[in-house]
Amino acid sequence: MSSDPEVGEREASDVHEGRREFLKGALTAGGVAATLGAGAVGVSSVTTADAQPGMVPGARNHYYVPATDKTVHWGYFSKLLKPLVEVSSGDFVTIEVLTHHANDDAERMVKGDPGAESVFYWDKQRKGVDRRGAGPMQPTLFGRGAGEGLGVHICSGPVAVRGAQPGDILEVRIIDLKPRPCANPRYKGKSFGSNAAAWWGFHYKDLITDPKPREVITIYEVDPSGERNWAQGVYNFRWTPQTDPFGVVHKIIDYPGVPVDHKTIQEKHGILKNVRVPIRPHFGVLGLAPAEADMVDSIPPHYVGGNIDDWRIGKGATMYYPVAVPGALLSAGDSHASQGDSELCGTAIECSLTGTFQLVLRKKDTLAGTALAGLDYPLLETQDEWVLHGFSYPKYLTELGAEAQSKIYEKSSVDLAMKDAFRKMRHFLMTTKGLSEDEAISLCSIAVDFGITQVVDGNWGVHAIIKKSLFAGA
Amino acid sequence: MSSDPEVGEREASDVHEGRREFLKGALTAGGVAATLGAGAVGVSSVTTADAQPGMVPGARNHYYVPATDKTVHWGYFSKLLKPLVEVSSGDFVTIEVLTHHANDDAERMVKGDPGAESVFYWDKQRKGVDRRGAGPMQPTLFGRGAGEGLGVHICSGPVAVRGAQPGDILEVRIIDLKPRPCANPRYKGKSFGSNAAAWWGFHYKDLITDPKPREVITIYEVDPSGERNWAQGVYNFRWTPQTDPFGVVHKIIDYPGVPVDHKTIQEKHGILKNVRVPIRPHFGVLGLAPAEADMVDSIPPHYVGGNIDDWRIGKGATMYYPVAVPGALLSAGDSHASQGDSELCGTAIECSLTGTFQLVLRKKDTLAGTALAGLDYPLLETQDEWVLHGFSYPKYLTELGAEAQSKIYEKSSVDLAMKDAFRKMRHFLMTTKGLSEDEAISLCSIAVDFGITQVVDGNWGVHAIIKKSLFAGA
Repeated sequence: MSSDPEVGEREASDVHEGRREFLKGALTAGGVAATLGAGAVGVSSVTTADAQPGMVPGARNHYYVPATDKTVHWGYFSKLLKPLVEVSSGDFVTIEVLTHHANDDAERMVKGDPGAESVFYWDKQRKGVDRRGAGPMQPTLFGRGAGEGLGVHICSGPVAVRGAQPGDILEVRIIDLKPRPCANPRYKGKSFGSNAAAWWGFHYKDLITDPKPREVITIYEVDPSGERNWAQGVYNFRWTPQTDPFGVVHKIIDYPGVPVDHKTIQEKHGILKNVRVPIRPHFGVLGLAPAEADMVDSIPPHYVGGNIDDWRIGKGATMYYPVAVPGALLSAGDSHASQGDSELCGTAIECSLTGTFQLVLRKKDTLAGTALAGLDYPLLETQDEWVLHGFSYPKYLTELGAEAQSKIYEKSSVDLAMKDAFRKMRHFLMTTKGLSEDEAISLCSIAVDFGITQVVDGNWGVHAIIKKSLFAGA
Repeated sequence: MSSDPEVGEREASDVHEGRREFLKGALTAGGVAATLGAGAVGVSSVTTADAQPGMVPGARNHYYVPATDKTVHWGYFSKLLKPLVEVSSGDFVTIEVLTHHANDDAERMVKGDPGAESVFYWDKQRKGVDRRGAGPMQPTLFGRGAGEGLGVHICSGPVAVRGAQPGDILEVRIIDLKPRPCANPRYKGKSFGSNAAAWWGFHYKDLITDPKPREVITIYEVDPSGERNWAQGVYNFRWTPQTDPFGVVHKIIDYPGVPVDHKTIQEKHGILKNVRVPIRPHFGVLGLAPAEADMVDSIPPHYVGGNIDDWRIGKGATMYYPVAVPGALLSAGDSHASQGDSELCGTAIECSLTGTFQLVLRKKDTLAGTALAGLDYPLLETQDEWVLHGFSYPKYLTELGAEAQSKIYEKSSVDLAMKDAFRKMRHFLMTTKGLSEDEAISLCSIAVDFGITQVVDGNWGVHAIIKKSLFAGA
C-alpha cells in the first residue's frame, strides 16, 4: 500500500468519488457489523457517521447472511437461485463463508459450529446440503453423489442488487474479512484451514518421492484475532479411500465435504517446523451469476468472476464485475487464509472467513469515460494498483460450445491466459487512459507485471498489474 | 525490502556470512568506484574499512571494465573469449554496459560518448564491432550482417575468476548500478533509453489498429542522477526500412546496432502525457559462459543465466550461477532502466548502465547444507526473497540436440517454464530447508508466487518467489 494518499486524491473520476466513500464507509460498517449477531439473515439500518459537504447523510442498510444449510448453494452458480436478500446500491452486507474442506478435520472446523454442522450434516438418510456441484442430482455420470462434485465451493448467497441489469457494473468493496473461530472448546481461540495437494494440482503427475501418485492434506492453524500475521502447519496426512455415510467410497478427493474418518489416516505432526506462512485472507470465489446456463460449475472462473483465486481479493480491495442477469446475484465462497500466485497444488489454505462488503451499482449510462466503460471481465482495484484478470477462455461458456463445462478442463494453458490478460490491459490503457495502441503496448512491456493467478481451476488465469502512480504525474 | 534487519540476522549459514560482508562491501566499493575513471580496463587496491572480529582485514582489488570496441562481445557468449581481467574471489569489478538499442537515437545515446562511438562505429568500410550474433561471419544465412544478428546484446567482459571450476558457484553481488549520462551537450544532465515493440514481441501478430504489423520505437528519458525514480516518454516512431552503411536494407529490426536515419522516420512527440514509469534499473543479461558450444546466441537464457530479463536483478540483489567452464567467465549486457514481468513487446527501456559487482567464488566442496548445494540454475537473492528462475528448456543446448540454437525459438511455452520453476522450488525447499516433498508442495501452493519473467527470449521464463521470512520463526 502506498503511504501517499495524494496518489488517490489526484485521480478525479466517478470511481474515485466512490473510493473516498469506501474508505469512510469502511469505518461505519465496521462499527455496525459488530452489533449484528449471526444465525439468520438480518438487516439493520445505519447512518453514515460524518457527512461531507455536498453529500446528503442518508440511511443505509446493513444485511447479514449467515452460512447455514438454508443459505448456501454448493458447487455451482445459477441465475435461477432465489436471492437471500435484495439490497440497494450503497448497502452493506456481511457474508459468512465456509470452506468446503472443513470436513478434512471436522473436529477443528465443524464441531460445535451450528452453521457448519447444518451444512456438513450427513448421515445414512440425508445430507444437510444434498446437491454439491452442477451435475445431475442422480449421480449417473460418476456415481460420486448428488451434483457429482462438478463444482466444489460452498457459496453463500446470492445477494440481489435492486435495479441491476445486464450491462451495468457491480462494484464490490471488501470492507472487512476475518477468520471464523473454531467452535470446539478444545481449540478455543484458534482457527484452522486445510490445504489439499490433490489430483487436479499442477504437481500431481510429477511427484518424485513414493507413493505416487498421492493426495495430501495439510492442516494449518490461523490466528482468528488477526494479531498474528502468519499461519503454521499443524499436521498432514495422506488421503486414504473414504467411505461416505451413503456408502460411496472416495478413493480420491472427488466429491466435496466427504467426512474424513481420522481412524483411517495417519496424522503426521511436527511438520513445517518453524515455518511461518504469511497470511493473505481473501475470497477465492466472489462473483455474479452468469447468463449463459442455468447451472454453472463453480470451479472455472470467467467474465463474471467466480473462482478467480487471486489472493489480492482481500480487505481493502474493490472488485468490479459486469452484471449478466437482473439483480446481479452476488455469491461468495472458497475463503482462503493464504495462497500464492498459481495455487500450484490445487488449493490454498482453505479456511472459513466472514466478510463485510459494500455493494455499489454502476449503471451502464454513467460509465463513459471511467475505468469501467466497456468492462467485460472482473477488474480489481487496490489502493495502489489496477489488477486485470485474464483467462485461457474468458467467456468459455459461449466460446467452447454446448460441452463447454467439460471441455474447459481439457484446453487451458498459461499462454492463452497471458494473451487474454495482454488484450485486456491494452484495452484498459487505451479506453480508460486514452492512450494509443503504441503507447499502451510500450507500457505493457515496461510497466505491467504479468503473474500466474492459478493453473488448477480448469480455466487457467494470468493477472496483469499496473500501478496507479504511473498516471499521477499530471 | 523488509524494514526488519533481524530477518536476515536470524538466517545463520555460510551464505549469510557472505551477505553481511556484502552490505559492508557495498559501502567500501561505492567509495572506490567514484575514484576510478573510465577509459581503460583498470585495477585499484582497496582495504576493507571496518574489520570484524575473526576476519583478517586484507587488500581487495577493484577492477574497471569500460565498454569499448575492444572490450565487448556482441550477441553471443563464448568460452573461447579471452578474459579482459582475472579477479580473485572477493574482488570488485565495475562494468560499463551499453544498450544495443542506442543507435535507435544516436544523438541521445551515442554522440559524444567515446566508448559508445567506438562500439557503434560503422561506415562503408568497417564496423567498430563487426560480429553481432553467433551466426557466420559471412552472412550466408539471411544476409543481415556478420554474426547474422543471431544474438543481439552488447556484452561487456568476460571477467574471469581465479580458481573457478565447473561445479563451483559464482556469487555476484550487485553493489551499485547507474544510468549512463548522455554525452551530447544538447541533452546535458539527461539519460535516455529505447523501447522497441518488435517482431519478436508477444503482441506482434495481435495488433488491433493499422498499419499491421508494425514495429515501434519509443524513446524514454531517465534521470542519470538517480534523484527521480521514474522515466517518461519523449517520442515514438514507426520503424521504416533502414539501409545500413554496408548497403543492406533492414525492413524490420533484424540486426542490432543499425543506425536509424531520422530523416526516414516520423518522430511523434507529446506521447504518454503525464505518464511516469517507475524505474527498476537492472541487467537483462548477466551470466557465465556455457560449456556446451563455442558460440552461443545471447538471447535465450538458461542454466548459466544470460538474458534472464528479471527486473529484480538490480542494486542490492545477489545472483548465484553454476560455473560451467574454468574461470567462470562473467559478462554483463542488455541493461534496462525498467521492465515489467513478461517484457511483452520484446524489449524493456533499453538504457546503458554502469554496474559495480563483487564476485565471490563458492567452491563445490563448501556448499553442502547451504542454499547453493546442487544449484544448477541461476538463483537470485534479495534482502527479503529467494527468486528461482525456470525456463521452458532449462538446459536447451543439451535438451534440444544439435539444432538447439534454432529449435529453441519454436518450442517455448509458459506452461513448460512454470513446470520447471515448480520443480526448482520444490528442490530448493527440500534440499536447503530440509522439508519433505509433501511439505514443499504445500508451501509451493500457499506461499510461493509464480510470475511470468518473459515471453520474448526464445526460451521463455517463469520465476518463483518465496519470502525468507517464512523461515525466520525458529
